[in-house]
Amino acid sequence: MLILHSFWLSLATYRVRIALHLKGVAFEERAHDLSKGEHDLPEFRKLNPAGAVPALEGGTRQPLTQSLAILEWLDETYPTLPLLPSDAEGRAKVRSLFLLTAADTHPLVVPRVQARLVTQFGSDETAGRAWSAHWFREGLVAYEAQLAPGATRSHGDALSIADLALASHLVGVARFGVDLVEFPRTAAVGESLFAIPEFAAAHPRFQLGAPGI
Amino acid sequence: MLILHSFWLSLATYRVRIALHLKGVAFEERAHDLSKGEHDLPEFRKLNPAGAVPALEGGTRQPLTQSLAILEWLDETYPTLPLLPSDAEGRAKVRSLFLLTAADTHPLVVPRVQARLVTQFGSDETAGRAWSAHWFREGLVAYEAQLAPGATRSHGDALSIADLALASHLVGVARFGVDLVEFPRTAAVGESLFAIPEFAAAHPRFQLGAPGI
Repeated sequence: MLILHSFWLSLATYRVRIALHLKGVAFEERAHDLSKGEHDLPEFRKLNPAGAVPALEGGTRQPLTQSLAILEWLDETYPTLPLLPSDAEGRAKVRSLFLLTAADTHPLVVPRVQARLVTQFGSDETAGRAWSAHWFREGLVAYEAQLAPGATRSHGDALSIADLALASHLVGVARFGVDLVEFPRTAAVGESLFAIPEFAAAHPRFQLGAPGI
Repeated sequence: MLILHSFWLSLATYRVRIALHLKGVAFEERAHDLSKGEHDLPEFRKLNPAGAVPALEGGTRQPLTQSLAILEWLDETYPTLPLLPSDAEGRAKVRSLFLLTAADTHPLVVPRVQARLVTQFGSDETAGRAWSAHWFREGLVAYEAQLAPGATRSHGDALSIADLALASHLVGVARFGVDLVEFPRTAAVGESLFAIPEFAAAHPRFQLGAPGI
């Protein structure tokens, strides 16, 4: 049985959780409360020396880390419902869109960065939220420019890893109160994605640890 | 002929340039001076709406962007000297190591982030350098923990995309004056990598635009 090490708020974990649901792969989730620093405990650092979720255990000799690396592994290992296009240019495109949100935006807003802004620059909650909102908005500008008019998916007609990353981006967009009105194509793709049961079921707000759950 | 859109200081471009050299793929380089904001010009945004280098033109209908997406495309298109292992777990491992530096560290230190630290938090050059050094060091801690004793490569005996990312990380480490003394395994792998002619020739300091070039 695969074990997904997670935290309910984690956007990177959300991407992997959607893929597991879409592919119908059985897994158990083990939650680590990042808000209590559980990612800094020695047991957790053994699992992932970078002290970050997600980590996926049980399918390989060593735990897998980094959402994109895990997703590529899942797609190679469970090829039903492929999440990468069959052509090389298409694969490059969806990987690029994925990284636009997962690498260019999300690493800028995680708790360790927020904490560093506080200690180095005296940031507070309001400044931290403004910082995060700024980067989510920047990501949207570049994403919107790459979507086709009338699109319901990030690339072509099929779901891809780019859609998983976009869904996680849009959760951040909502969390930090960024208005989607200037980004109608992205909003339309997002609406279509969140209507898919597996995207909805994997949503952070329905995970153990979320308010009311 | 492939065209690599670049900036001499760019760590992400360095990774792609190494791969082109290693695989012996003919390419021309076109430099954009990011310090003069040339990535914000409309012509450049047409090439990459995210306004970032590298972009690789000429091999596909649309330009490719994001270093990891470009590297995966190069490895699929020019399979001589593969830069990903032949087993799924190995591929996941080198992608994870790649992302540890390219996604968890580098997006935190790029010019647009430095600029935002100035406008939002009144950062100056000293604070900006301390910020960057902090994140390079954090990346080293997690990288060092994942290297085998006596290793000369990031994973196993063969060069991989992880080594390309590590080389770029070590250029940042040197630029921001981070001491490698606590990271002997990483230092040893780095020494072995920089001795490879293709890594040396692709180094930022030898590119057009670098001081004295």
